[in-house]
Amino acid sequence: MTAACYLGEKTLKTVETQPREPDRGEVRLDVSYTGICGTDLHVLHGAMDSRVAIPAVLGHEMSGTIAELGDGVDDWSVGDRVTVIPLVWDGTCPACIAGQRHICHHLTFIGIDSPGSMQSSWTVSQDVLIALPAGLSLEHGALAEPTAVAVHDVRRADLRRDEKAVVVGGGPIGILIACVARAQGADVVVLELSEPRREFAKSLGLRAIDPTTDDVASVIGDWTEGAGAAVAFEVSGAAAGIETAIQSLATRGRLVVVAIHSSPTPVNLFRVFWRELTLIGARVYEREDFETAIELLSNGSIPAAELITSIEPLTRVAQAFAQLESGAAMKILIDCQDGV
Amino acid sequence: MTAACYLGEKTLKTVETQPREPDRGEVRLDVSYTGICGTDLHVLHGAMDSRVAIPAVLGHEMSGTIAELGDGVDDWSVGDRVTVIPLVWDGTCPACIAGQRHICHHLTFIGIDSPGSMQSSWTVSQDVLIALPAGLSLEHGALAEPTAVAVHDVRRADLRRDEKAVVVGGGPIGILIACVARAQGADVVVLELSEPRREFAKSLGLRAIDPTTDDVASVIGDWTEGAGAAVAFEVSGAAAGIETAIQSLATRGRLVVVAIHSSPTPVNLFRVFWRELTLIGARVYEREDFETAIELLSNGSIPAAELITSIEPLTRVAQAFAQLESGAAMKILIDCQDGV
Repeated sequence: MTAACYLGEKTLKTVETQPREPDRGEVRLDVSYTGICGTDLHVLHGAMDSRVAIPAVLGHEMSGTIAELGDGVDDWSVGDRVTVIPLVWDGTCPACIAGQRHICHHLTFIGIDSPGSMQSSWTVSQDVLIALPAGLSLEHGALAEPTAVAVHDVRRADLRRDEKAVVVGGGPIGILIACVARAQGADVVVLELSEPRREFAKSLGLRAIDPTTDDVASVIGDWTEGAGAAVAFEVSGAAAGIETAIQSLATRGRLVVVAIHSSPTPVNLFRVFWRELTLIGARVYEREDFETAIELLSNGSIPAAELITSIEPLTRVAQAFAQLESGAAMKILIDCQDGV
Repeated sequence: MTAACYLGEKTLKTVETQPREPDRGEVRLDVSYTGICGTDLHVLHGAMDSRVAIPAVLGHEMSGTIAELGDGVDDWSVGDRVTVIPLVWDGTCPACIAGQRHICHHLTFIGIDSPGSMQSSWTVSQDVLIALPAGLSLEHGALAEPTAVAVHDVRRADLRRDEKAVVVGGGPIGILIACVARAQGADVVVLELSEPRREFAKSLGLRAIDPTTDDVASVIGDWTEGAGAAVAFEVSGAAAGIETAIQSLATRGRLVVVAIHSSPTPVNLFRVFWRELTLIGARVYEREDFETAIELLSNGSIPAAELITSIEPLTRVAQAFAQLESGAAMKILIDCQDGV
């Protein structure tokens, strides 16, 4: 079998290795496709070297089929098409007891804290499996994980039909949030600095504006009849994005903080007070978000074909990461069986 | 009649003037007591000179009795004991239409944007009157407004019985929030730098700790069995207060931003994301908050007698402001009939 490994020092390499036999309660998957995520780029840059065990197999956006069952796996069969929710919780911490297992105090993330799916054969616990329906291709099924992120963000916003929502940042997650919000009946505007990304958003029928040249306040004001938007999603990771989102909101507006702001960010708390805004943290997803994501991918609400910029073989993983890094691509999938 | 006027340049002076006859829909009140608020101190310091029309009569925390009725006032009688909700909304802006009149886009605040109650006779619209029940003294009734602030903050937190709540800042509003939260069945800890204020909180039966010498993380950890608090109220106005509040919260914890942070404040958005926290802006109050406040004052949930440090005559208004400024007092009332 073949695996793409992160070796440290910004290096990815495809290596030949041995599949791991499934233990009790585990299954071995033939991985079909693995998407590359922004987090994977962070790992490649060494930002998570304290968490990853080098050589590390990355990858947590995937689809595959079950190739082998361990003992005690009764609800799955060889050949079942699946994706994986890449979270492992301890089940005993205060968050787990409160029913928030996805933000367990001791959460580990498969593909960072343990080996991921960027390999032809992958052995995981049956607990993380999620079935893919017959009508959903394995290529599109590999988008279940990032779509679940967007579904979770929209759910955290408690977005309601006909509400107006601003998405600050039109990268892959921003576009997915915009599509999920639209599928739920919201009216969406995407703010994005990059012209190609704006054009891509427009090609999906989304409204996209440039916050550096368009008068955002005036556009939002006209669009909302002076009220401001009910919801904003901050997906840019920039302090300016937070401020733009806050300024865009109506009284009692909700701002979902999607992007990771790794150092304390100046926030206009006066405006939060003045308009009685709510800022909402959103992290990963719960199983029901995957189920909704798969439904939205299956019914065409998520333009999966358009979002997949290219599909590369495992042997070209380093080039695929470089292509994503350049910002020209939305989603790049690794075909984990191609050339193996 | 007598009025305490802000004349600019940090000057307050008591002057003799004429009462204003009530127009249609208005009443003239004999003001009993007016509390001094932190906002009044800001006005005295010139921080709101762009809003106040000098000479300005300050005051918006009050009690009084109706002395004279204008035409068209059918639901009130001379002698009725009242307080005032000092907000004027336009009723037509998007916030008003959405039912959030208390944060109207064009809200004006009585006692800042128009003459306040620090005078023996005060004429206001019947629309702002709120009845005080027979069992509530006029001294204690003057605390309805700051108590309504606290009630609104606690309501914005959606605080539930038996939840654990941290109040960062033990000044008058912080203490009122702690008392309202306790009255609603929450378990409360107050964090306060000032030793006299901590002692005052303790004298009310509240738990109070010093965030500069006590190990807050350890205290909160022990108290919540490692979970963190469900709710925090940031009443200090300091960036460190925001950080302490955020660090104190459990997963999905709610932080109510009560204090005014007049410039952008560094906020640990990583923690907001990591624990899926919610930050909630809270501004002034709605009529129902006054009604709850009056109920809590009437049933003894708010220790009004203890909160009133002293009562001074209108002629000593400058000294009363100076006393409040020194930080030694909780609430100082001006007796607006004493010496008039």
